Amino acid sequence: MYLCTAHNYANMLTIDPKEIPVAKLHHYLLGAVGPRPIAFASTIDKEGNDNLAPFSFFNVFSANPPIMVFSPARSGRTNTTKDTYNNIKEVPEVVINIVNYAIVHQMSLASSPFAPGISEFEKAGLSAIESDTIRPKRVAESPVQFECKVIEVKELGDQGGAGNLVICEVLKIHINEAVLNEDQMIDQHKIELVSRMGGNWYCKADENSMFEITKPITTVGIGFDQLPNDLMNSVTLTGNDLGQLAGIEVLPNETDVNEYKLIELSDLFVSLEDEPEKLEIELHTKAKALLSENKLNEAWMTLLAFNNG
Amino acid sequence: MYLCTAHNYANMLTIDPKEIPVAKLHHYLLGAVGPRPIAFASTIDKEGNDNLAPFSFFNVFSANPPIMVFSPARSGRTNTTKDTYNNIKEVPEVVINIVNYAIVHQMSLASSPFAPGISEFEKAGLSAIESDTIRPKRVAESPVQFECKVIEVKELGDQGGAGNLVICEVLKIHINEAVLNEDQMIDQHKIELVSRMGGNWYCKADENSMFEITKPITTVGIGFDQLPNDLMNSVTLTGNDLGQLAGIEVLPNETDVNEYKLIELSDLFVSLEDEPEKLEIELHTKAKALLSENKLNEAWMTLLAFNNG
Repeated sequence: MYLCTAHNYANMLTIDPKEIPVAKLHHYLLGAVGPRPIAFASTIDKEGNDNLAPFSFFNVFSANPPIMVFSPARSGRTNTTKDTYNNIKEVPEVVINIVNYAIVHQMSLASSPFAPGISEFEKAGLSAIESDTIRPKRVAESPVQFECKVIEVKELGDQGGAGNLVICEVLKIHINEAVLNEDQMIDQHKIELVSRMGGNWYCKADENSMFEITKPITTVGIGFDQLPNDLMNSVTLTGNDLGQLAGIEVLPNETDVNEYKLIELSDLFVSLEDEPEKLEIELHTKAKALLSENKLNEAWMTLLAFNNG
Repeated sequence: MYLCTAHNYANMLTIDPKEIPVAKLHHYLLGAVGPRPIAFASTIDKEGNDNLAPFSFFNVFSANPPIMVFSPARSGRTNTTKDTYNNIKEVPEVVINIVNYAIVHQMSLASSPFAPGISEFEKAGLSAIESDTIRPKRVAESPVQFECKVIEVKELGDQGGAGNLVICEVLKIHINEAVLNEDQMIDQHKIELVSRMGGNWYCKADENSMFEITKPITTVGIGFDQLPNDLMNSVTLTGNDLGQLAGIEVLPNETDVNEYKLIELSDLFVSLEDEPEKLEIELHTKAKALLSENKLNEAWMTLLAFNNG
């Protein structure tokens, strides 16, 4: 398991993008920026022919107005533009369909270079349904479908590998009720989003990979500069542990620490009363376990107990 | 486990973004578009004071030229602009530091609303190191650091929640050698990227959540429309299974199927020779297991054996 700690960040590979081939630069950009959300974009040409293709140069960028941006880039091999880009120049409308685990192989299939005029909906076995406000069709199997008008296309270059920012305003949102919780909000466990990484890799967001960090919006933590030296020099606590500890707003007071020590830690203090170094390691280990359960106050009381009374 | 299958996509919640409060719209956008990569942006004001803040309205959009975009949006609560936005208007330079699991809590701490003039580097316990080409400093603990010049800032609105596209060109890339493989490329398992989802949720990309889909770039699969009816109507095979099957370029020939049947499947055919329906289910189950190991040809031979000879 890789841990980026002080002892190893001295050795860096430094790259000037202008001095390496575009394909290699592409690898570094896609290997470092991720996991990337996937826009499964449905467009039409001026004759009304459907096109459906996935793009991971994509994200939401604004809530008011609701704006998403994706980039159907020029081919790095052939410098041709994609059907999606050509369609949007003819008909500036797009449905951005969200991809979850249940349709990831069908999405991948739709990204094959089928000849123009071949329907990716049909080839990928996906159901096309009418949109409310625009002409391109939605993917029925997608858990969330955004009907968008394209407000601007910004070309970033004219060489192979150049991106094209397609700036979209969301006109309508359709959400499968199966991914909603009882408050009609999207449940992050139910939606099972997938995202794109470097190489052939994808990432699945589920109970194995999701974790929570709760952070007050208007209050601030004490910060690393207020952490006692014995914690900063701990062999047990990592940067992440210290980051959590430094996020506390106010330290627990001495009375609470003493009470916690008496009730929760007395066995430990009694058994190791003649071995303070071992006791300190045990307390740090216990605090680390409490942090992993988001028990910030208890972790602090455990650590402060060492120097108390 | 949620599966988006034909029986449940009829029930959709449809939303007009103009008819709901911005905070609710914000929830739907962030709950559906994800996991989002994180730009840990280091900027300076015109006096040279450091600022460090994370943004998940972020992605790479072009390799040639190398372009990244992130959005320090106007506050939905107070309609104020962020220090990062203000700094970039004064000094159009930024280091985009990538966030991995080892520094996720320190990154979260840096996102607290510290007063202007307070260094997030110090508060989050991160080491500031000089850049080669620009004035803002890099985060030493970040596994990949992109030195960028800002080529354009595009304001998307002036109300609370409005995004601001900060369009950046990458001038220099620094990669910690600990995340490289022996070919000096980024190893997706070693980098341990984290990304942002809705609510307080993050997603960790590791061996539990990463999966591969190999897809030829220049060839195309047969497509769903060429799948036999008995597969389309299978009670065992899902859309993902069919998506993999439809991705095959050429079906295995009859000789290969017969040989595979003889060597690999004869026990099954003998034991169930009087129960064709049960045999079919067993073969579909076996094919599904082969698909999960990416054994596409073997899965097809298993399925085709049912109707052969």
